[in-house]
Amino acid sequence: MNGVPRTIKLTLQYEGTAYAGFQRQPNGVTVQEKLEEALRSLTADPGFKIGAASGRTDAGVHACGQVVHFATESRIPVEKWPHALNQHLPEDIVACAAEVVPDDFHARYWALSKRYRYTIDNGPFPAVMTRRYAYSWPRQTLDLTAMRGAALLITGRHDFAAFRSSGGAAKTSVRTVTDLTVTSAPPYIYVDIEADGFLYNMVRIIAGTLVEVGSGKRSLADVSRALTSGDRRYAGKTLPAHGLCLEAVRYGDGPKGRPDFWTEEDT
Amino acid sequence: MNGVPRTIKLTLQYEGTAYAGFQRQPNGVTVQEKLEEALRSLTADPGFKIGAASGRTDAGVHACGQVVHFATESRIPVEKWPHALNQHLPEDIVACAAEVVPDDFHARYWALSKRYRYTIDNGPFPAVMTRRYAYSWPRQTLDLTAMRGAALLITGRHDFAAFRSSGGAAKTSVRTVTDLTVTSAPPYIYVDIEADGFLYNMVRIIAGTLVEVGSGKRSLADVSRALTSGDRRYAGKTLPAHGLCLEAVRYGDGPKGRPDFWTEEDT
Repeated sequence: MNGVPRTIKLTLQYEGTAYAGFQRQPNGVTVQEKLEEALRSLTADPGFKIGAASGRTDAGVHACGQVVHFATESRIPVEKWPHALNQHLPEDIVACAAEVVPDDFHARYWALSKRYRYTIDNGPFPAVMTRRYAYSWPRQTLDLTAMRGAALLITGRHDFAAFRSSGGAAKTSVRTVTDLTVTSAPPYIYVDIEADGFLYNMVRIIAGTLVEVGSGKRSLADVSRALTSGDRRYAGKTLPAHGLCLEAVRYGDGPKGRPDFWTEEDT
Repeated sequence: MNGVPRTIKLTLQYEGTAYAGFQRQPNGVTVQEKLEEALRSLTADPGFKIGAASGRTDAGVHACGQVVHFATESRIPVEKWPHALNQHLPEDIVACAAEVVPDDFHARYWALSKRYRYTIDNGPFPAVMTRRYAYSWPRQTLDLTAMRGAALLITGRHDFAAFRSSGGAAKTSVRTVTDLTVTSAPPYIYVDIEADGFLYNMVRIIAGTLVEVGSGKRSLADVSRALTSGDRRYAGKTLPAHGLCLEAVRYGDGPKGRPDFWTEEDT
């Protein structure tokens, strides 16, 4: 039942709550493991492996638009892949789109930018339906104007050394944040960020910095100092994983220009 | 530590997934049981019971604004009740407001109207984050105009005998639907309904009827016939519980005028 070899780009949603992150690892169930199990079962190929994902997501982080690629000789028409695969996936992982891409497509190397959303529940009590997806900050109403001021400072090309946790493998900490928007949709505050790459825990530290600015604990001067000094102490705390979601990955028509990003580790 | 006896009106959110409905019952864990356990622990009164809830919710149904009342001599200031109680509640039940009400207040008898929302996920694949709160209808894009036409027919005072499941205890099936709105927020469709009372499974059958109208399976003439004949066969299927949420209960300043509603069972 083999056909012509093709490379398929697959878009996935998942709730990260039950997983030790995206990437396969010796201890803990991962999204990649569940995905590869489903692909093995669908293709009847016990050795089936994906090529790569756009990046890792940490334990507990969600995704609405994670992208992976893989090569296959399966004759299943590309538009049938999501539905067919969903029959083999657990209900917290959903394949939502598939397309044939050039054989040299690579989900990580070709990614021009990624968008993440960090969701803060700023209500007096955590909204019960979103408790798995939103970080509850009930203490006080956050100052959106101050948060937006800090977001403007962070937007642009900077050395984000102060906004990374140790453990990342990235060679350089210079990144370009092309968009950082703070949106109010009571009781929620959305922090949407797009960049050409992210350092380990970068979104969760930026969100933590914005919360500290919004609660008056940290000033805009601290944020500037964090950006110019690279000193982790001027940035905010790393917020919990469950508020974070990988929203989308944007691709060009070839590998991106900075191979030094290729080993980055995502938040 | 006893104070003056007071009656407290408490507003609750809960995710119904894990519960056999609101009301205590011999088999299965219920929201009422968890709530009363928390109240017993908070008040150190092992016999503590709530007075009543605004109505039952079925197994799997959620609530953003369920209301209960109870009498207490506790000295805890009323504004501290939600936070104090949340320390004793599981994370899928959240107390979000409390106020002192007249001693003859009754969460069911005084309820003038209730609002429910039924959420349909009309995307091609179920959105993973809302799979516990939205009913997935991936087959085709529903016809909103047709659904709104049916909603207009259903709005008003009618005999809803065709829109009830057997097992309810209501003496009359005449109800007044004061609002029935179909809102599109892709991939979601919200069916919001307010009425002076609901029959057993009424919202889930109305939502099922609207889906069947929106998918062309059922005509507006069927809906009219259901309303005039009271024949269950002209209405749609009962949709699953997990798409339903009790949004809010509206109260007047005394018992409502129709005691024949007092024994109603909610969906």
